[in-house]
Amino acid sequence: MVGSVGNGLMDLCDKGKVEPLPKEFDPTDIVEPVPALDLEGVGGEEGSGKNREIVLGRNVHTMCFTIKEPEVDDEVTGEREAYMASVLARYRRSLIERTKHHLGYPYNLDFDYGALAQLQHFSINNLGDPFIESNYGVHSRQFEVGVLDWFARLWELEKNEYWGYITNCGTEGNLHGILVGREVFPDGILYASKESHYSVFKAARMYRMECVKVNTLISGEIDCIDFKAKLLQNMERPAVINVNIGTTVKGAVDDLDMVIQTLEENGFKGRFYIHCDGALFGLMMPFVKRAPKVTFKKPIGSVSVSGHKFVGCPMPCGVQITRLKHINVLSSNVEYLASRDATIMGSRNGHAPIFLWYTLNRKGYRGFQKEVQKCLRNAHYLKDRLKEAGIGAMLNELSSTVVFERPKDDEFVRRWQLACEGNIAHVVVMPNVNIDKLDSFLEELFQKRSCWYQDGKMSPPCIAADIGPENCFCVLHKK
Amino acid sequence: MVGSVGNGLMDLCDKGKVEPLPKEFDPTDIVEPVPALDLEGVGGEEGSGKNREIVLGRNVHTMCFTIKEPEVDDEVTGEREAYMASVLARYRRSLIERTKHHLGYPYNLDFDYGALAQLQHFSINNLGDPFIESNYGVHSRQFEVGVLDWFARLWELEKNEYWGYITNCGTEGNLHGILVGREVFPDGILYASKESHYSVFKAARMYRMECVKVNTLISGEIDCIDFKAKLLQNMERPAVINVNIGTTVKGAVDDLDMVIQTLEENGFKGRFYIHCDGALFGLMMPFVKRAPKVTFKKPIGSVSVSGHKFVGCPMPCGVQITRLKHINVLSSNVEYLASRDATIMGSRNGHAPIFLWYTLNRKGYRGFQKEVQKCLRNAHYLKDRLKEAGIGAMLNELSSTVVFERPKDDEFVRRWQLACEGNIAHVVVMPNVNIDKLDSFLEELFQKRSCWYQDGKMSPPCIAADIGPENCFCVLHKK
Repeated sequence: MVGSVGNGLMDLCDKGKVEPLPKEFDPTDIVEPVPALDLEGVGGEEGSGKNREIVLGRNVHTMCFTIKEPEVDDEVTGEREAYMASVLARYRRSLIERTKHHLGYPYNLDFDYGALAQLQHFSINNLGDPFIESNYGVHSRQFEVGVLDWFARLWELEKNEYWGYITNCGTEGNLHGILVGREVFPDGILYASKESHYSVFKAARMYRMECVKVNTLISGEIDCIDFKAKLLQNMERPAVINVNIGTTVKGAVDDLDMVIQTLEENGFKGRFYIHCDGALFGLMMPFVKRAPKVTFKKPIGSVSVSGHKFVGCPMPCGVQITRLKHINVLSSNVEYLASRDATIMGSRNGHAPIFLWYTLNRKGYRGFQKEVQKCLRNAHYLKDRLKEAGIGAMLNELSSTVVFERPKDDEFVRRWQLACEGNIAHVVVMPNVNIDKLDSFLEELFQKRSCWYQDGKMSPPCIAADIGPENCFCVLHKK
Repeated sequence: MVGSVGNGLMDLCDKGKVEPLPKEFDPTDIVEPVPALDLEGVGGEEGSGKNREIVLGRNVHTMCFTIKEPEVDDEVTGEREAYMASVLARYRRSLIERTKHHLGYPYNLDFDYGALAQLQHFSINNLGDPFIESNYGVHSRQFEVGVLDWFARLWELEKNEYWGYITNCGTEGNLHGILVGREVFPDGILYASKESHYSVFKAARMYRMECVKVNTLISGEIDCIDFKAKLLQNMERPAVINVNIGTTVKGAVDDLDMVIQTLEENGFKGRFYIHCDGALFGLMMPFVKRAPKVTFKKPIGSVSVSGHKFVGCPMPCGVQITRLKHINVLSSNVEYLASRDATIMGSRNGHAPIFLWYTLNRKGYRGFQKEVQKCLRNAHYLKDRLKEAGIGAMLNELSSTVVFERPKDDEFVRRWQLACEGNIAHVVVMPNVNIDKLDSFLEELFQKRSCWYQDGKMSPPCIAADIGPENCFCVLHKK
């Protein structure tokens, strides 16, 4: 039984504070708090180079809401309920603030799903394959299949030739697409540009596939000359290729047609599988006139897109579409696979399809087109204003991701939730990012920046290697 | 532009009905509707045995809510909004009905999350590793880490020795646990009882691991004599073992202590990794006195549990806890893994941790204990009533899953959403399954059953092979 009472029920726990446990937990061996681990080196000598590891997982308790055992009289006093309500209210306020200052991640935070609130308290679960009926009745397959049909039509695959499902996120789409590719070509080598999302390389490791990284152009697109050279080194094995429809950092769109041409001209016809990672721009490209078309009329195997990015679902989700014939390949030699479930996750969030269905129905093709145009327009505005102010910046033609000089101050980066890599940062202009928001961001940036570099001791970094000398305004490249 | 107007906007689409697309979709090659595929044989001769495939994925459009392009004047007329509202209202009614008649799946549908409704419209995303700070501010890591701490303490692993995250479902927990096992023992063979969840065998295929199926006892528990025999055939390679804390069909709990003993007595000491699949009963076992204890004081590597089952989250989710030192193994030789994200999914639903946090705080240890006792009591009631009525039934000592003779009528099975396998069906008694619900189920079953078997032409199936002759009441085994 816990000793604390009243308002101390839920604390922001600091480093390693351990609450006594109820007897039944047999806590005799839980020792006293240990300080949070050094941020820089777990299990290795910091800076010594000896035993230095890249640590994937660690356990740093910077801040958390501890869960405590309720008092026996809690139901009478109602103190716990009141305290929890206050934690939630404070959290809600912080969400509002954090949502307001948000530029770095491609999440459209502009939505109104009031109409769906009535469904929030049902345990909706789309178990397994959306096309195979399940006895579990509290599902939303009828919405899910409607959404899948919409996407299959968008990417021009016949109703009776596609298979797909609504995933938990873009990563699941990539994991699925690459798995299907490997099952079609068990001996295939995975090719992906080095600016591909990290989930692609994670997939290679999970699936024990050999993976070849291909160079990129300054724009972030795959370099097909390097791709050809690497293909020629592995002529004897089929190719599984991840094509980016919008890279994570620069929003670059790989040239799908040139990738296919490179494959076919170099002896890979009929011996390749292409997965299109459209997590970011998969739903924007169809509405951009000059964009290379993603369509199953071309020899591609699968396409994935995220639902919480451009579409703006309030939870991570995605759509995965592939050819039905490929899924049938998964079914051969299934000695151990006792199920007909070709998804990666068994239980799937049944709320996500309803959000997608609702948005697609409400906005429709024209609605998305309008939003895409607005995003591209606003992205151009941002890039132009940055350059006018002498800040190096780049915007790919088919993209709403503006890449620019990394702000010197980490607090500023955190405040605006910018994603950074090396010397560059980016803003992804989503439908909720309007001119007002950009202006207030720019104003703050200009003001801060004049402080950062005022004494002349430091100057902005050179980012020519990242965005090209013509876009860099460092001391060396300033005209 | 779509031609239809008014109330026809959203139809339950029947087989393959295709709506014309807006011009921009370039729909010229979308051909006319194709009838839905034959339910029994895709790509094979039905019944001929020739080219007969197990088809994992298919594309049967039995019923779906089609998405249609809005009319230009929709915003003025409001017809679309009204129609969508009516679809949602009808759907809500069906969810209420389906939730009421639900017995076969282990989902606790008894919850009240009114206090969390205020957070539903935020795009909460816990990107990547919960212990590594992210610039994306709209997250719920502070709740997630609180929940993880609670589970780590429950399973007796020190705060600075565990790593974990909140997953999308039980399957993701198994995929993660087995992946960690493979990374710790790259040459390991995966052992799992044949009654393990299918995701375990899916993992073996995904990860290209050799997998050995172990026999089970009548109860559904792993047969350690067979396990030993299979270990002895593969002495030279380490073992990765999936231990079931509640099998899917019979709710059987593998004897963890005997599994460890079998491993250690046969030369595998220090050469095995155990993942405990506690999806179903992982959170119930700690509250059952006679249950074998799941604890990290024993040589286990990871434990997973579902959050939408006993806990009753309204969306699929789960908790995964493993040893921090194992996660560090993932970080060695990460030539291609450009990230420090040791989760399987990159983007993770940030709402789930809040639901879990809320429930754990509200119910606490004592609350769960009470609910577990209620479930076990009600499960005994159900089993006793079935047997009294001459219906073969079995209930494992540590389980709330009642296995019994499969009802003859499929409509009855669907109505009560029973999960079936061969000649048996099961009811999983969750906290929302009270005596009233069981009584109305039993009454209906008794009534229907007397019709099914009234003319004496047919008699109930023998299920002695599934639940033991002592529990079977078929013609042969009736006393």
